[in-house]
Amino acid sequence: MPSPIPAVSVDPYLDRVRANILALPESGIVEVMNYGRSREGMIPLWAGEGDVPTPAFICDAAAAALHAGETFYTWQRGLPELRAAIARYMARIYGVPEDPERYFVTGSGMQAILVAFSIALGAGDEILLPSPIWPNAAAGAQKLGAVPVHVPLAYGAEGFSLDIGRLEAAVTLRTRAIFLNTPGNPTGFVATRAELEAVLAFARRHGLWIIADEIYGRFYYGEGTRAPSFHDVMSADDHILFVQTFSKNWAMTGWRIGWIEADPRLGQIIENLIQYSTSGVAAFMQRGAVAALELGEPFVAEQIARARHGRDIVADALLATGKVDLVKPDGAFYLFFGIEGYRDVRRLGLTLVDEANVGIAPGTAFGAGGAGFMRLCFARGAAQLTEAARRLSGWIEANGAAAGADSGRRA
Amino acid sequence: MPSPIPAVSVDPYLDRVRANILALPESGIVEVMNYGRSREGMIPLWAGEGDVPTPAFICDAAAAALHAGETFYTWQRGLPELRAAIARYMARIYGVPEDPERYFVTGSGMQAILVAFSIALGAGDEILLPSPIWPNAAAGAQKLGAVPVHVPLAYGAEGFSLDIGRLEAAVTLRTRAIFLNTPGNPTGFVATRAELEAVLAFARRHGLWIIADEIYGRFYYGEGTRAPSFHDVMSADDHILFVQTFSKNWAMTGWRIGWIEADPRLGQIIENLIQYSTSGVAAFMQRGAVAALELGEPFVAEQIARARHGRDIVADALLATGKVDLVKPDGAFYLFFGIEGYRDVRRLGLTLVDEANVGIAPGTAFGAGGAGFMRLCFARGAAQLTEAARRLSGWIEANGAAAGADSGRRA
Repeated sequence: MPSPIPAVSVDPYLDRVRANILALPESGIVEVMNYGRSREGMIPLWAGEGDVPTPAFICDAAAAALHAGETFYTWQRGLPELRAAIARYMARIYGVPEDPERYFVTGSGMQAILVAFSIALGAGDEILLPSPIWPNAAAGAQKLGAVPVHVPLAYGAEGFSLDIGRLEAAVTLRTRAIFLNTPGNPTGFVATRAELEAVLAFARRHGLWIIADEIYGRFYYGEGTRAPSFHDVMSADDHILFVQTFSKNWAMTGWRIGWIEADPRLGQIIENLIQYSTSGVAAFMQRGAVAALELGEPFVAEQIARARHGRDIVADALLATGKVDLVKPDGAFYLFFGIEGYRDVRRLGLTLVDEANVGIAPGTAFGAGGAGFMRLCFARGAAQLTEAARRLSGWIEANGAAAGADSGRRA
Repeated sequence: MPSPIPAVSVDPYLDRVRANILALPESGIVEVMNYGRSREGMIPLWAGEGDVPTPAFICDAAAAALHAGETFYTWQRGLPELRAAIARYMARIYGVPEDPERYFVTGSGMQAILVAFSIALGAGDEILLPSPIWPNAAAGAQKLGAVPVHVPLAYGAEGFSLDIGRLEAAVTLRTRAIFLNTPGNPTGFVATRAELEAVLAFARRHGLWIIADEIYGRFYYGEGTRAPSFHDVMSADDHILFVQTFSKNWAMTGWRIGWIEADPRLGQIIENLIQYSTSGVAAFMQRGAVAALELGEPFVAEQIARARHGRDIVADALLATGKVDLVKPDGAFYLFFGIEGYRDVRRLGLTLVDEANVGIAPGTAFGAGGAGFMRLCFARGAAQLTEAARRLSGWIEANGAAAGADSGRRA
């Protein structure tokens, strides 16, 4: 197996566990969460979710369906009503033709990724991951026995950008796919239309699948109402699988519902993969998702405005210290930044819990290129973020690049 | 790849789909369902679910949690309250020590199977499946690139039974696991304590995982309150993974919630597999599951009594024709039977839709050994089953072993 095998000795009971499964990483932000979660007054900015529960109009629709007896097995591809609602939503936001046959409801965005990976990747196959990247993408590939190949994004004064040369250099005979998350978690990187065209040409050249994770597409702070998308540049015969989720736009992280968008020629294959993964998504939950799409636009607009405001509160405060390496992101809802003088971000995360009572995640949780960075989620209310920014900037002013810190963060 | 590759030519767009995924079978009962589902007055006995929606006390608990804002990310292993409730339930029903650390909440019994398979099986590995068997087990293995090896149960006047000699003969260097479903879908086969001991000794001898699917354990019509279980014969160091579901006992088929029971030493591995599959189960659904376990015993008892009565209604009517090959099952909620003179059960299923207006599934959907049989679900109300039995026995009396039927069902 090309997957790394843990060097430490393990309980002999585990000898029969597949090596690639034994080697699956624990989430890299769990350590700091466990360290800090019970602290009095802690402000938790480590997870990728906001602080607003699912709005009532969505919960009401689900509860009504539940009480109406929608508790039986249902369509493996999703309720026709939900697939139609997704098609209308996508046509409205992305200007694509309204075609319900392209959409398949999944039990989370994570499941959408797994379905896409199962189509594209087998044991020993390689997938390119422009990084830093949400760790579940790499781990999902590893779970299938495939090999995640991290390809660092370029980093400069303008923030992160794609380097097609690095992607070219990473291609081997076993390369089958590229996973692109734009706007990106954790970096806030947003691919330009030109970058998307370049990735598409690259994928065509090498016969690769593109797994397009555009779940933060609405959380975009540049020109226009959404981030550039592969929908803007693709042709009908391109091999692109879009993974999506209800989690972020509609504050439904806990629901575990998403969708995959694919060419209808893949319909039966995707239906089979859903059948043999979790066999569908609860119909009553899908009624909530229909309500989200049909009635949720004011809520989404409010969420985006709130995130944009949150970004400015925290980024401006941190930048004012003059001791951070931070580019204000154009998308998603994270700051990904370094504090001058602190390269050991794992330790830094624990220190900030102790000394600033703010919880943020170490960049090392996000693969190659994350060393030296911290990830902070700003999808929260202004009052809490103002206080978090006050605590963090105070700590940085007192400690940034101070004696006793380790050597500078970039080698 | 050892998986079969379809001989038919497919759309070139699908050339980049993994061969084992392209070869995943469609559910074998879909054909007859699509054929019959819109018929006026049709009695559908083809699916593995009852006709009772989830009881209100379960729906109420879920809806209350939903409205209380339990809509955020939650524990990957399941709510501590639900794990504790499962442990109490298992201690009560199976007499095992009450240990919440053994239980992990999954997004369906199907996901529990996939988690178990991911631990045990990689590409090219083999898993033994005493058959006929619910088709999703084989397909789940195939999805991972593993090879399902069907090993026919023995069949005689007493119905189905395990043949350890056949299992021994099927073992190769690549065999990693055995999947045992008891009470069995579709056969109603119930392993005796002696058979379980023999399977356990067999698995120990060859160093195999046992994936124990005992989801119909409460639907047992023999002596005692539940079917024999590996819990009755195993030791602490045995490699057994139990897959479970809330679907059948508590009429929650549409919810997609189950659990896996495993040695706590596998805890972090299972947590990782859940994280990288669907990242947990909605907390508000888990509140419904807690209510099911804590308050659901009268409902379960009623379900079991109803199924036992249903079994007798249909089995007695069919046996009275003298033209069926049927052994009344001791477990699960299916009749698995042949009609003398009809071996082509795929065609027979469609004919019964047309001529008896009853929908039942062809045994060919359930792997090796299913040819010549039909599966009928009797988890329904007495009035509907009485009518279905009247229609079926009438048709059989008119047509069983008739001229024009194909040759006898067993060669």
